[in-house]
Amino acid sequence: MGSAIVESWDERAREKRARILACIPQDFITPSLSFSDTEALNVLDLPTFSESNPASVIDIPSKVLNQEELAITALKAEEIPQAIAARKYTAVQVINAFTHRAVIAHQLLHCCLTFMYPTALEQAEVLDRVFAESGKLVGPLHGVPFSVKDQCRVKGTETTCGFVANLGTFDDEDCLLVKILKDAGAIPFCKTTLSVGCMWGESINNIVGRASNPFNRTFTCGGSSGGEGALIGFKGSPLGVGSDLGGSIRTPSSYNGLHGLRPSSSRIPYHQILNSMEGQEIIPSVVGPMAQSTESLRLFTKAVIDSKPWLIDPKSPPIPWREEMASEVIGRPLRIAIMHWDGYILPQPPIRRALRNVEETLRRAGHDVVPMFEMDQPLADELGTKVCVSDADLDVQRSRDRSGEPKLILVPPPLEKPKPMSLLENWALAMERTKYQAQILQKWAQTAGTTQSGKPIDAYLTAVNPSVAHVHGEFGAVRYKGYCATVNVLDFTACTLPVSFVRDSDLKDQSETMDGFGTKIPSPVCDKDRLIRQNYSKNFEILQGQPVVLQLVGKRFEEEKVLAISQILEELLKSTSI
Amino acid sequence: MGSAIVESWDERAREKRARILACIPQDFITPSLSFSDTEALNVLDLPTFSESNPASVIDIPSKVLNQEELAITALKAEEIPQAIAARKYTAVQVINAFTHRAVIAHQLLHCCLTFMYPTALEQAEVLDRVFAESGKLVGPLHGVPFSVKDQCRVKGTETTCGFVANLGTFDDEDCLLVKILKDAGAIPFCKTTLSVGCMWGESINNIVGRASNPFNRTFTCGGSSGGEGALIGFKGSPLGVGSDLGGSIRTPSSYNGLHGLRPSSSRIPYHQILNSMEGQEIIPSVVGPMAQSTESLRLFTKAVIDSKPWLIDPKSPPIPWREEMASEVIGRPLRIAIMHWDGYILPQPPIRRALRNVEETLRRAGHDVVPMFEMDQPLADELGTKVCVSDADLDVQRSRDRSGEPKLILVPPPLEKPKPMSLLENWALAMERTKYQAQILQKWAQTAGTTQSGKPIDAYLTAVNPSVAHVHGEFGAVRYKGYCATVNVLDFTACTLPVSFVRDSDLKDQSETMDGFGTKIPSPVCDKDRLIRQNYSKNFEILQGQPVVLQLVGKRFEEEKVLAISQILEELLKSTSI
Repeated sequence: MGSAIVESWDERAREKRARILACIPQDFITPSLSFSDTEALNVLDLPTFSESNPASVIDIPSKVLNQEELAITALKAEEIPQAIAARKYTAVQVINAFTHRAVIAHQLLHCCLTFMYPTALEQAEVLDRVFAESGKLVGPLHGVPFSVKDQCRVKGTETTCGFVANLGTFDDEDCLLVKILKDAGAIPFCKTTLSVGCMWGESINNIVGRASNPFNRTFTCGGSSGGEGALIGFKGSPLGVGSDLGGSIRTPSSYNGLHGLRPSSSRIPYHQILNSMEGQEIIPSVVGPMAQSTESLRLFTKAVIDSKPWLIDPKSPPIPWREEMASEVIGRPLRIAIMHWDGYILPQPPIRRALRNVEETLRRAGHDVVPMFEMDQPLADELGTKVCVSDADLDVQRSRDRSGEPKLILVPPPLEKPKPMSLLENWALAMERTKYQAQILQKWAQTAGTTQSGKPIDAYLTAVNPSVAHVHGEFGAVRYKGYCATVNVLDFTACTLPVSFVRDSDLKDQSETMDGFGTKIPSPVCDKDRLIRQNYSKNFEILQGQPVVLQLVGKRFEEEKVLAISQILEELLKSTSI
Repeated sequence: MGSAIVESWDERAREKRARILACIPQDFITPSLSFSDTEALNVLDLPTFSESNPASVIDIPSKVLNQEELAITALKAEEIPQAIAARKYTAVQVINAFTHRAVIAHQLLHCCLTFMYPTALEQAEVLDRVFAESGKLVGPLHGVPFSVKDQCRVKGTETTCGFVANLGTFDDEDCLLVKILKDAGAIPFCKTTLSVGCMWGESINNIVGRASNPFNRTFTCGGSSGGEGALIGFKGSPLGVGSDLGGSIRTPSSYNGLHGLRPSSSRIPYHQILNSMEGQEIIPSVVGPMAQSTESLRLFTKAVIDSKPWLIDPKSPPIPWREEMASEVIGRPLRIAIMHWDGYILPQPPIRRALRNVEETLRRAGHDVVPMFEMDQPLADELGTKVCVSDADLDVQRSRDRSGEPKLILVPPPLEKPKPMSLLENWALAMERTKYQAQILQKWAQTAGTTQSGKPIDAYLTAVNPSVAHVHGEFGAVRYKGYCATVNVLDFTACTLPVSFVRDSDLKDQSETMDGFGTKIPSPVCDKDRLIRQNYSKNFEILQGQPVVLQLVGKRFEEEKVLAISQILEELLKSTSI
C-alpha cells in the first residue's frame, strides 16, 4: 500500500516561485537585477519630482530596455490602439515590450504570480493578422496588454487569491470580465500578487512574499491590489484590474501614483472572479481598473459596460454607459466639496497641501467649491471593520487549512478569540449600513443649499488615506480606513487622482497644533491621529518623492460623471504645480 | 409602589378591532352586514363568470351603495384623474365612495387594519381646491385613493406588520413610497391586513383574525398581502401596495382576480417600510402595486420611478422610466415562452386550460410562442424556503414575544427544533442563489436559438401557483412556491394577468394520467403533486367562479417591458374567451 505524496505548503510555494518566469523568453530576464533590500531604492526611470530625493534613483528601465521598448512602455493604455492603428507598432511589439518591462518589475518588486506570455503572444499575432487583413481594430482596446489581480480567472492559469492551496489548479475558462476585455481587443498577459484573501493593506502572502513600491523598494506598494499597483506604477502594465472592499484599489493606486476606479458594486462584473468571504454582501467587494490616466479608466469602463455584462452576470445592473451624464459636467462650474480632514484622523502634510492647492486651483478656474458635510467616517470605518471580521476569519482560515500554510501575523493577535457573528447580528449590521447610507444621501441632497446654482454637489475630493506610502510592515501603524471605507459602505463611485509628490517643503509638523508653515492645525483628537502624525515625523526624510494622490467621490453608479470630472481635474492640474 | 398596567395581547387586539371603524362616518357602516361564515359566500356585485356558480351571489354592493358610489367604485385607478379632470367627480366624492365600499369590504372580509378617513378627506378637499383654482391636476394620480399593506408607515397610524406588539405606536412620518404617491396626487386612505410578519400565504394574524375572499367567503384571499387582495378584489380600493418575498403580491392577486406587479428589488422604494427579517438580503422582499388593470400598475410604477427615488432610498437603482423599452415591443411579434408546468407540480385544470388558450390566442395573433426552458423550480423553491427559515423564526418570535401573543399553528411543527443558520452557511446560500441566477441567465440567452427572429424571448408566461384560491386553512395542502419563488430568487419582474374563471367545463381530473377531456397528462412525479391534484378533485364543486390568473415574467429591472407586454395581452384577451 502506498500513500499519496502531499507536498508541504512551502515546497508548493517554492515550486511556484521557480516557474513564474519559466514561460518567458530567457532574454527578457536580466540576471544582474539582484539587489539587496537596501539598494536600488527608487527603480523608476524618471524621478517624477523636482526636489532632492533621498531614495537612490538608478534608472533601471533605461539600462535594460531598448529605445523602442522604452517608448512603447511610456504609452498610456488609450495611446496603444492609436499607435497600432497608425501602424507605428504592432500588437506583438507592444506585448513584448510590456512583458519585458513586467519581468523587470517582478524581479525588482516581486509583484507577479503568473505570466501568460505564450497565449498573450498568440493573441497579439492574431490581432496583427486581423488588422493587416481588415485594416480595422477589433475593438476599443485593440492590442492593449492588461494585468489582473490574482483573483481573476484566466483559462489555463492558477488563481490563488493569495492562498497556497489554490496552486496547481488551473482555470477552465476566463471570468466574464477577462472575456469582455479580450473581446474588446485587450490581451491578458500577467497576473499580479495580492494580500492573502485580499484582506490587508500590504501585499504579502506565503507564495511570493511581499511586494515592493517602485518609488522606493523599502516601501510597500499597498494592498490588497498591490501587485497591480507596483506593476503599473513601474509601467510594466498599462492597464490592470484590481478589487476593492475597503480601499484595495485606491490604496495601491495612491502608493504608486496611479489612477484607479472603485466603481459601484457590479458596474464592472465580478462574475466568476474568486474572493475570500464569498457570499458576504453587506459591503460588496468590487472590481475596477487601475492605470496611468483617467482616460485609460474611462476607456476600460465604457468598453466593459458597452458589452452589456448584465446579460450574463446576475449582479450587474442594467445601466448602459450614459455619455450624457459625462457631457453634462463639461463647460460649467463643477460643484465640488473638499474634505480636508474628517474630524478624526488628520491627513499628513503633503496630502493637506495637495487638497489646499487643488481647492485654490478649482476656485481660480471658476468652479464652485463648498465645504464638505459631516460624513461620520469613523462610523463607516467601524461598519467596514465589522463586516471584515464578521466570520472571525473562519473563511480565510479554511483556505489556509487546505494547504497548511501559516497565518501571517501582521497585527498583534486579539486577546480573546473572536467569534463569528450570528445571523441576527449580521442582519442588524446590514440595517445599520442602510441607515448610514440614507443619512448621507440626505446630507448630500442638502448641499443644494450651499452651492451657487442651488443644486447638490457633483462630487467631493478628499484624501485616500491619512498617510502616503509607508515603509514595509508599518501598515498597522498608519492604518485608518475611514476615508476609503466610507465609499465602500455607501457603495459610491470613487477614483484616485495623482496630483503631486512629497517634497522638501512638506516640512514635518513642528508641533501638534501648528504645521510646518506655522499655520494652526487641529489638535489630535485620538491616539491613532497622534500616532499617524508621529509616523510622518519619524519617516519624513525617506518619504520624499512618494506620490501624493487624492480621491474624488461621486454617488452610487455615477461612474460616467466621476470619470468626466476626474478628466477635467487632471487637465486642469497639468498646467498647475500642486 | 404601583406597578404599570400591562394589557394582555388579546385585550390590545380587541381594543384595536373596536376602533378600526371608529373614525368613519357612521352612515358608512351597515349594521345588517353580519352573516355567518357560511352565508353570503360570493359578496361581489357581479358574478364575473358565465356558468352556474354554487357560491350564493347576494350582490351586497348594489344593496348598500348608491348609484354614484357604484359608478365611482367601478372606476379603475387610471380613470379617476380623468374623471376628476373632466369634472365628473370631485376627489371628495371619490374618497367617500371608496371609503364607503372599503368599510363594507372590511365588514364582510376583515381585510383592513386602519382607516384614515379624516386625513384622506382633508387631502381630497385640498386637491379639489387646487384643481378648482388652477384647473390643473397636481400629478398623474390626482385623487386616486390607495390602500397599503400594513407594513407601510403612514404618519399618525400604527404599522403592525401583523404583530400585536406594534399596536399603540404611531408613525412620525410617511415612508418614502407613500410620500411619493401623495406628491403624485394619490390619497392613502386605508391600511390592510396581512399574515404575521408577511410570512404565510393566508392573511391571518392575532389582531383581526383571518381575511376572506370576496368571490367566496369560505375561501382565503391569499397572503401575505391578502388584505390588499380582498379589498381591491371587492373594489373597495382602486390601487394598493403589497409586498412580495415568495409570491405575497402575486398569490393574493391571483386569488382575487387582480393585476399585481412584483418588480425587481427596490425599483419601487422599500425605504422606511417595516418588515420581519429585516437585514435579510439574499432574497429581498419587494413592494409593488396591485390593481384592476395593467394600466393602473403602469401609472403607479411610472409615477414612482419618475420621482427619482434613488435620491433618497440608498437601495433604489438609478434607472429612470425607459419608455423606449415599453414602445419597443409594440407592433412586432412578441417572443413568449409558455411554461405549462415545471415538471414537478402540475397546475390544476383551469390554469392549464388558461395557458393552452392564451398560447393559442397568441399564436393566432402572430406572436412567436416557443417552449420554455428548464427552470429547476424545485431548486428555487428550496432556496426560497432556506432563506425564509434561515433564522429559525427567531426574528418573528422576538416580535411575538414583545406582546406575548401566541404563535399561530398553521403547519404541523417540525419534529426537531430548527436552528438558525451560521454566517458561513448563509454565505454559501447566497452563492447558491447567484449560481442559480447565472444558470438561468445563460438559458434565457440561449432561447435566441428557438425564436423566429433569433433574439431571446421577451418574457415567459406560466401559473402563479399550481392552485387557484382554496378554502380557509388549506394553504398547507396546496402550497408549492416554485412558480412564484423562482421569480424572487432570480429577482426578475413579474406581473399577474387575470384571464378567466373556474367553470363547469373544467372537469375534475378523471385519473392521474388523463385530464377531463381525455387528454394525456403527466403522471404525478411526487406526493405533493398528487396531493394538489387531489385537493382540486375534492373541492372542484366549490371552486367554480374563482378567478384564474396567470403570471408573465420578464428579466431583472424590465418593469417597462413586462407591463407593456401585459397590456398587449390584456387587450388581446378582451376579445377572446379563454
